[in-house]
Amino acid sequence: MLEETIMKIAKALPRLTWIARPCLVSLFLLGVLSMNSNHSRASDTPIAIVVHGGAGTIRREELDAERETAIRSALEEAARKGRGVLEEGGSSLDAVIAAVVVLEDSPHFNAGRGAVYNAIGGHELDASLMEGEFRRAGAVAAVRGVRNPILLAHKVMTDSPHVMLIGEGAEQFGQIHGITFEDDSWFDTEFRRQQWERVREKDSTAYAVSESTDHWLSTVGAVALDRHGNLAAATSTGGTTNKRWGRVGDSPIIGAGTFADNRSCAVSATGDGEYFIRAAVAKDICARVQYQGKSLAEAARDLIHGELVDMGGEGGVIAIDPAGNIVMDFNTEGMYRAAIGADGSLEVLIHRED
Amino acid sequence: MLEETIMKIAKALPRLTWIARPCLVSLFLLGVLSMNSNHSRASDTPIAIVVHGGAGTIRREELDAERETAIRSALEEAARKGRGVLEEGGSSLDAVIAAVVVLEDSPHFNAGRGAVYNAIGGHELDASLMEGEFRRAGAVAAVRGVRNPILLAHKVMTDSPHVMLIGEGAEQFGQIHGITFEDDSWFDTEFRRQQWERVREKDSTAYAVSESTDHWLSTVGAVALDRHGNLAAATSTGGTTNKRWGRVGDSPIIGAGTFADNRSCAVSATGDGEYFIRAAVAKDICARVQYQGKSLAEAARDLIHGELVDMGGEGGVIAIDPAGNIVMDFNTEGMYRAAIGADGSLEVLIHRED
Repeated sequence: MLEETIMKIAKALPRLTWIARPCLVSLFLLGVLSMNSNHSRASDTPIAIVVHGGAGTIRREELDAERETAIRSALEEAARKGRGVLEEGGSSLDAVIAAVVVLEDSPHFNAGRGAVYNAIGGHELDASLMEGEFRRAGAVAAVRGVRNPILLAHKVMTDSPHVMLIGEGAEQFGQIHGITFEDDSWFDTEFRRQQWERVREKDSTAYAVSESTDHWLSTVGAVALDRHGNLAAATSTGGTTNKRWGRVGDSPIIGAGTFADNRSCAVSATGDGEYFIRAAVAKDICARVQYQGKSLAEAARDLIHGELVDMGGEGGVIAIDPAGNIVMDFNTEGMYRAAIGADGSLEVLIHRED
Repeated sequence: MLEETIMKIAKALPRLTWIARPCLVSLFLLGVLSMNSNHSRASDTPIAIVVHGGAGTIRREELDAERETAIRSALEEAARKGRGVLEEGGSSLDAVIAAVVVLEDSPHFNAGRGAVYNAIGGHELDASLMEGEFRRAGAVAAVRGVRNPILLAHKVMTDSPHVMLIGEGAEQFGQIHGITFEDDSWFDTEFRRQQWERVREKDSTAYAVSESTDHWLSTVGAVALDRHGNLAAATSTGGTTNKRWGRVGDSPIIGAGTFADNRSCAVSATGDGEYFIRAAVAKDICARVQYQGKSLAEAARDLIHGELVDMGGEGGVIAIDPAGNIVMDFNTEGMYRAAIGADGSLEVLIHRED
């Protein structure tokens, strides 16, 4: 077919005027150039992934060398796992899920295994995710025994007409859909048990919620950009130590802890959940990018270091835009975080000065 | 004290130079004028309230004359109740609570009494509210037996460090804080039972969620502006008929079903909850006002008739801005709604053409 067309054009060429001929040649060259540029654009489409393991006050006595090494290594593994998905042409959604599963399975973060203890000594888990192309989303809150809450949130997105399921209903949905459950003991860690006991010792009131000084530290999340130019975000947490009353923070709230929209950015937040809900942090950053035309870095800075500080909210975000620009910003002392940018270089950071 | 001061000034006056004297007089006059203008500004500050009883397809066979009269009368009562609070100098938050309580207590709306039936024949209620000055917020989801979920959401805001409590934990919190509970039968209505039975007859699959054609109709909400220039929004719902798995829609989600920010607007939404969460409807409208500089009407229109329609989401919003501009916009056939604007005139509307 192509050969036939070329022959026809070649035959027709001598009949063309001297003015038309260079025009046709130019058009042909332009076509070739544009195909080339399209091709190079496709393979040049940046891929990138960022993960976090929570923002907060990172206390020296709680971060000995051994723990720090384990945390850095888990962050690196999560970023590499997500990056691997992206390199194979996988979606940003699959990449953030893969990264968050690594962090949920690590006992060093407050998500999945290693989740904090609630007021009755159990673990109640929250998670959400969103993809930026069609803005589909899934979320679960206050689920127990779910090994990887992010996989359950994904199942809610793909296998139900719903965005958010909570409590026992969400667990039943997970059981029907082959989600892996573990005994409560699987989530237990000595580190979190000690945290819980310290909080309980201080807690003399009947229903005031005492919180560890690093209570929002160690929520996990990931954001990514894939070869197709699609963004995604995911967040998972065990909430706050000694939490009660079925308290839900920002992590499972689409627009607060998690948001993704190809027209602006993907955000996963970590911080003082109540403030993050009230400021609709993840959606607000995307709105500043989309409606104010601000850069992702400016938008995040304006919110995290301006408005949120004014309100009294502490925490941070990781975010990424369709050009592959990465933001890891926080108004706390530190944020566990790692990124593999478009150039393939890995960064694993903890403190502000890193 | 005041007399003494005046005497002192009067005594001092002759000693002042001819230049200083007119200056002092001018300053005095300016002060009086500015006090006057402050005073007239205070009494000119518009107060307004808007309420809704849900958007959707309003089917003729489900809206006979008797039911229509009852619905119109409840909407009017809710608007008047809220307006009464505002006229007495009360806060917009108290006004929207008063209005929503009327609609929750009415058996004609899907909130509080008259809530739809879930998959096991019970009622699970969601509500949220937010005020625009400090952007404090409260929300509850999947609570049972709570006569006025909006009062429980308010209690979460005022008496806990949290924004969102769910399920049994939220109920326990309410019991401790003197919230009124009712037997499940108190929420039952024949109208909703028949709706539920129609849905169950059609529901042949094990876990697909069948929904009534008017499943999002009858969520209730209110937005208001008070004499102090403060905005507030509140939303309450029973969710979707035959819902299961602990499904949570947009109503209790700050940023989706409810948002208030004095810098932009207050919004209460009603519609296809999943789409409303994904579009972060309430926050998005406020963001368009704040960051794009659009009018409230434009911002709501762009979202409700543009983006939301593109996504496939049906529903509407009521909204108000600090100037007292009112919006009642929806992409469905109708929305139960009423408003008392700055001029004090009442509107009660149902269909689009009203």
